[in-house]
Amino acid sequence: MNSTLFDPSLPGVRQLQAWTREQRLLRIELLNGSSHEGVLLWQDPEFLAVVRSDASEPILITRRALTLIRPLG
Amino acid sequence: MNSTLFDPSLPGVRQLQAWTREQRLLRIELLNGSSHEGVLLWQDPEFLAVVRSDASEPILITRRALTLIRPLG
Amino acid sequence: MNSTLFDPSLPGVRQLQAWTREQRLLRIELLNGSSHEGVLLWQDPEFLAVVRSDASEPILITRRALTLIRPLG
Amino acid sequence: MNSTLFDPSLPGVRQLQAWTREQRLLRIELLNGSSHEGVLLWQDPEFLAVVRSDASEPILITRRALTLIRPLG
Amino acid sequence: MNSTLFDPSLPGVRQLQAWTREQRLLRIELLNGSSHEGVLLWQDPEFLAVVRSDASEPILITRRALTLIRPLG
Amino acid sequence: MNSTLFDPSLPGVRQLQAWTREQRLLRIELLNGSSHEGVLLWQDPEFLAVVRSDASEPILITRRALTLIRPLG
Repeated sequence: MNSTLFDPSLPGVRQLQAWTREQRLLRIELLNGSSHEGVLLWQDPEFLAVVRSDASEPILITRRALTLIRPLG
Repeated sequence: MNSTLFDPSLPGVRQLQAWTREQRLLRIELLNGSSHEGVLLWQDPEFLAVVRSDASEPILITRRALTLIRPLG
Repeated sequence: MNSTLFDPSLPGVRQLQAWTREQRLLRIELLNGSSHEGVLLWQDPEFLAVVRSDASEPILITRRALTLIRPLG
Repeated sequence: MNSTLFDPSLPGVRQLQAWTREQRLLRIELLNGSSHEGVLLWQDPEFLAVVRSDASEPILITRRALTLIRPLG
Repeated sequence: MNSTLFDPSLPGVRQLQAWTREQRLLRIELLNGSSHEGVLLWQDPEFLAVVRSDASEPILITRRALTLIRPLG
Repeated sequence: MNSTLFDPSLPGVRQLQAWTREQRLLRIELLNGSSHEGVLLWQDPEFLAVVRSDASEPILITRRALTLIRPLG
């Protein structure tokens, strides 16, 4: 992703910020067919940090590998 | 996508804007082989926000993962 | 694709323009293994608009997902 | 590909130019698992134009989808 | 990845630096479905150098092929 | 890859240069699941030129398709 895209005024970045604040459970689907559920801790231009309900530490998911983010519950 | 591509005068961006205004049902196919039907709520350089008929909230689909968009009905 | 690549003097862009003018039937193969036949209506840096013989409206195919374009007939 | 990569002094671009001049038969393997044999007609930053032995017209192969080019015979 | 992303103040780059200092065992998942366990030796904008427990020399993993990094143990 | 990444002072580019000088046998794994063994002849921002033990001429492997490089023997 071009870093010029990581503009906090873009609706996608703002939607992810809102879901982070709300601690919204998300389902994140990736190019390799895997999917992951968790709460977003932070985003930067390369990664999303996602905390799963059974874990204390975040995993890093590559923004480049995302296909779809779906809010749950 | 290079943000210079997100130029509202480009025919692709304008076609997506027209389908958003018309609330046109679209079938969106992705690199991982999945496909999704819904109405476009907004687009930005990284994501398309898509509302499916059985959902009140949009999902975010990564523009980078798109292969094909087909208008339906 | 970097928008600097969308230079009408490049041989690839010119070949696609020639096939558009000739309404040449093309077979377009994508990274996800799907392939699509149709006539090119327009190209921009992000999409090819393709009209299939059984459809009145174009589909949008992402340039980034292309692997191969083969002229038919 | 960044267009700054399409520098005729780069060894990769020069190797492809040499194979074009020699009309060398090449095997070209793509990200989607397909492979194609033919002679290179031209290259630009987005495409390779490849003429197969059983065809008069070139196909366009996306440089972005390449994995491997192997000289044959 | 755009080199402007490789900014040591970004939270993702800092998290990887912290795991490198701690010699934290990581599970690294890639776009082709493979996964690899090891300790991070260094990162640069193109590669992660990963030392597996049964090896003395690092392997290079392409940052572009990452989908997910998960701390273990 | 952004050409600004092809900086000879980056540790990844330097590691590949060292393996080239040492004629080190490498196993190179690609996004499409294929893997290739050989010695590196040169690198540029788009390609690695790899000579396999049973061949006199190099093959070109796209840097963009790399997932992993592993030194052997």
